[in-house]
Amino acid sequence: MDHCSAPLDILIQGGRLLTLSEDNRLIEDPLIGIRDGEILFIEEAHAPLVSLYAPKEIIHADGCVILPGLINTHTHVPMVFFRGLADDLPLMDWLNNHIFPAEREYVNREMVHAGALLGIAEMLLSGTTTFCDGYFFESSVAQAAYESGIRCVAGMGFLDADVDHVAEAEIERHLQAAEKFLSKWLPERPMITPALFCHSPYTCSPQTIRAIKEVARRHAVPFLIHLAETSDEKKIIMNRYGHTPVHHLGALGVLDDMTVAVHCNWLDEGEIACLAANHVKVSHNPQSNMKLAAGVGPIPEMLAAGIDVGLGTDGCASNNDHDMFGEMDSAAKLHKVMKKDPSIMDARTVLTMATMGGARVLGLDRLTGSIEVGKKADLIIVDLKKPHLTPVYNVCSQLVYAASGADVQTSIINGKVVMKDRRLLTVDLEEVMDTVIRIAQDIKH
Amino acid sequence: MDHCSAPLDILIQGGRLLTLSEDNRLIEDPLIGIRDGEILFIEEAHAPLVSLYAPKEIIHADGCVILPGLINTHTHVPMVFFRGLADDLPLMDWLNNHIFPAEREYVNREMVHAGALLGIAEMLLSGTTTFCDGYFFESSVAQAAYESGIRCVAGMGFLDADVDHVAEAEIERHLQAAEKFLSKWLPERPMITPALFCHSPYTCSPQTIRAIKEVARRHAVPFLIHLAETSDEKKIIMNRYGHTPVHHLGALGVLDDMTVAVHCNWLDEGEIACLAANHVKVSHNPQSNMKLAAGVGPIPEMLAAGIDVGLGTDGCASNNDHDMFGEMDSAAKLHKVMKKDPSIMDARTVLTMATMGGARVLGLDRLTGSIEVGKKADLIIVDLKKPHLTPVYNVCSQLVYAASGADVQTSIINGKVVMKDRRLLTVDLEEVMDTVIRIAQDIKH
Repeated sequence: MDHCSAPLDILIQGGRLLTLSEDNRLIEDPLIGIRDGEILFIEEAHAPLVSLYAPKEIIHADGCVILPGLINTHTHVPMVFFRGLADDLPLMDWLNNHIFPAEREYVNREMVHAGALLGIAEMLLSGTTTFCDGYFFESSVAQAAYESGIRCVAGMGFLDADVDHVAEAEIERHLQAAEKFLSKWLPERPMITPALFCHSPYTCSPQTIRAIKEVARRHAVPFLIHLAETSDEKKIIMNRYGHTPVHHLGALGVLDDMTVAVHCNWLDEGEIACLAANHVKVSHNPQSNMKLAAGVGPIPEMLAAGIDVGLGTDGCASNNDHDMFGEMDSAAKLHKVMKKDPSIMDARTVLTMATMGGARVLGLDRLTGSIEVGKKADLIIVDLKKPHLTPVYNVCSQLVYAASGADVQTSIINGKVVMKDRRLLTVDLEEVMDTVIRIAQDIKH
Repeated sequence: MDHCSAPLDILIQGGRLLTLSEDNRLIEDPLIGIRDGEILFIEEAHAPLVSLYAPKEIIHADGCVILPGLINTHTHVPMVFFRGLADDLPLMDWLNNHIFPAEREYVNREMVHAGALLGIAEMLLSGTTTFCDGYFFESSVAQAAYESGIRCVAGMGFLDADVDHVAEAEIERHLQAAEKFLSKWLPERPMITPALFCHSPYTCSPQTIRAIKEVARRHAVPFLIHLAETSDEKKIIMNRYGHTPVHHLGALGVLDDMTVAVHCNWLDEGEIACLAANHVKVSHNPQSNMKLAAGVGPIPEMLAAGIDVGLGTDGCASNNDHDMFGEMDSAAKLHKVMKKDPSIMDARTVLTMATMGGARVLGLDRLTGSIEVGKKADLIIVDLKKPHLTPVYNVCSQLVYAASGADVQTSIINGKVVMKDRRLLTVDLEEVMDTVIRIAQDIKH
């Protein structure tokens, strides 16, 4: 009871706690004390005198499971504006005739901010407490995250107009933009972690990739890049540089433990070993890879090689939502059928990918990804008192195979309640939806 | 206005209507009149004097989409009791050491009734208005469906203790049970359609399969059977009878337009042609097939061959929920990635499989599966005013790729409102959940 020198901000009482920490504890009927954004204590037994803790707010979790907030390691959140705009098309038709033209015409600061707020609302309502983004006008994404209280790794996007002929002046502009973006957002860590996002080996020149990674290294921020998403990409990079995409990045010297490689569907054994040896992090986006028919990555092999792998939804043009519960379900099931083995990618493995795995990928594992004393209080409360979640034999199974984002009752980020009883407390949802619908009228025509 | 001779039971007003009929209409701001269980009229424009219709109940659907209720063509609904009991295990270990023993020990009339009510509650809350079931004590499933007002094809299950040595007396018992079951439930058509379900070619003897199908034919009711689910099954049947599972059933003379073959993952071209030529119906269960690593069926090829294919969830030991929205999403995405073609299994195709396709599979297409004048009023209203469903460019895409069962606001079956504003009107949910939790305590230990 020495926690009581100052009042608690929040006390969570009852239910079951799935810490997802190394010791893999499931605590029945816990008491969790939260103060100044952090988890102050976790008591195993139901203390008789709750009032001694003098909490400002008590949250009752009877019939619920309390678990770490989910971590979405890859999205382009403003692309909610392209949700359902051009589905079921061949990949290059989709990209070149629909998505890229729509982006050229409609993407601006206002659109990015409004789209980010909508996507963040969606994430807060479905259990995501940290997301990693990469897009244009990324300062507007960071701003939206800052306003809504979600933890965010905001990756400023870079592309070259012509990868074969990049002017020195263009690289200089990239570097100035990167420095300006980082200096603006670095002070907001750890709520907002600025990062730099080179779109891909096929849309960024070697000079740009090297230069941007150099800035990321100097400031110790994550460097994000799409890698080996499609077999076409592999052919293009082989033809252009004589290496596979992974070895191309290796030759450029940008593979290290602060590089997040997104997708990694087309890797051979040597490339898996290369990523593992360089401690590169991987973001796996199963639903996007399925919907775009991009391919199925060797995720079980990467996990076996000790690579940190997190889950991501990808943007809403290729998924089409931000529900990480759906992503867990798909990740578990997709690899089972591909490998003809129902015992791989079990529920616990997948749930860990969506929490601690994601935290490790983003370099935030000391702060978030599990519920432990001293960590930031990023946690969600899932209501199990529903027919599709009854009965409960195995909490992990229930969360991965039967729950959806709509079952999240309450979300707490950095010790602050951002969603309670399905109501958002930090985003004016009606206003955000009105703004998005207004802007979308133009995109539709 | 000649509809007004008697008052309407229900008038639905506003929103968008996706009829999913042959003419593929999307009607903005419709008026839908329902009387005596049937759709009486669909008006295209918003009539000024709603009061003229004198409806007993008006349902406002602004910001929503009205579509036919979803049809789950295959489940074992009492298996909600085994949800999450034994996941992530090798198939034969799962079946022989967990599911079959649990069934032997715990399945009884009370358990089946309670489990069916829970699963039906789950279905009503997630947009399913018709389901096809196969299990033991199937009269209790039919009874639960009857009480809760959901449309049901109830398949009484048959297995042989020893497929190689079946006594005449055993077959006689099967036949008596079948006749008794049919005579009890045939009068309740079309709300309850009794059917006969032989578990599979590997658990039922040729004599049993032939005899049961003969009874089904005599009464013109559906005959259900798991078929070609795994490659092991194919090997077993080849070894035992010298034919593949499909040709084995063909040789037994049981393939016709009232046979519903479930799974059909392991078919060659000749077998697809054989099913098509015999007008056999197919139930596709993508999430179950993925989770159990059973295989991926040639669904696009079957559709191209003109076979009627519906979607099913399978039982909750192998899925683990009854959400048909998840099933649609998985069906669309799985085949895209398997075929390396993002344009196949588009949203419209998948939505049709989950509605009219399912109705055709179950022989109920004159009654349900689309919203048309003269058909039974089986329809659902999905609320699109949510962040993950904003903006709306393409209603089909939104339903398949972004919506979940939790977005269904209202469900109407046979002209009766069974769920409104997420509250069940025909099932005492609290009581059902309490009963299931009580019984599950025993199963857990």
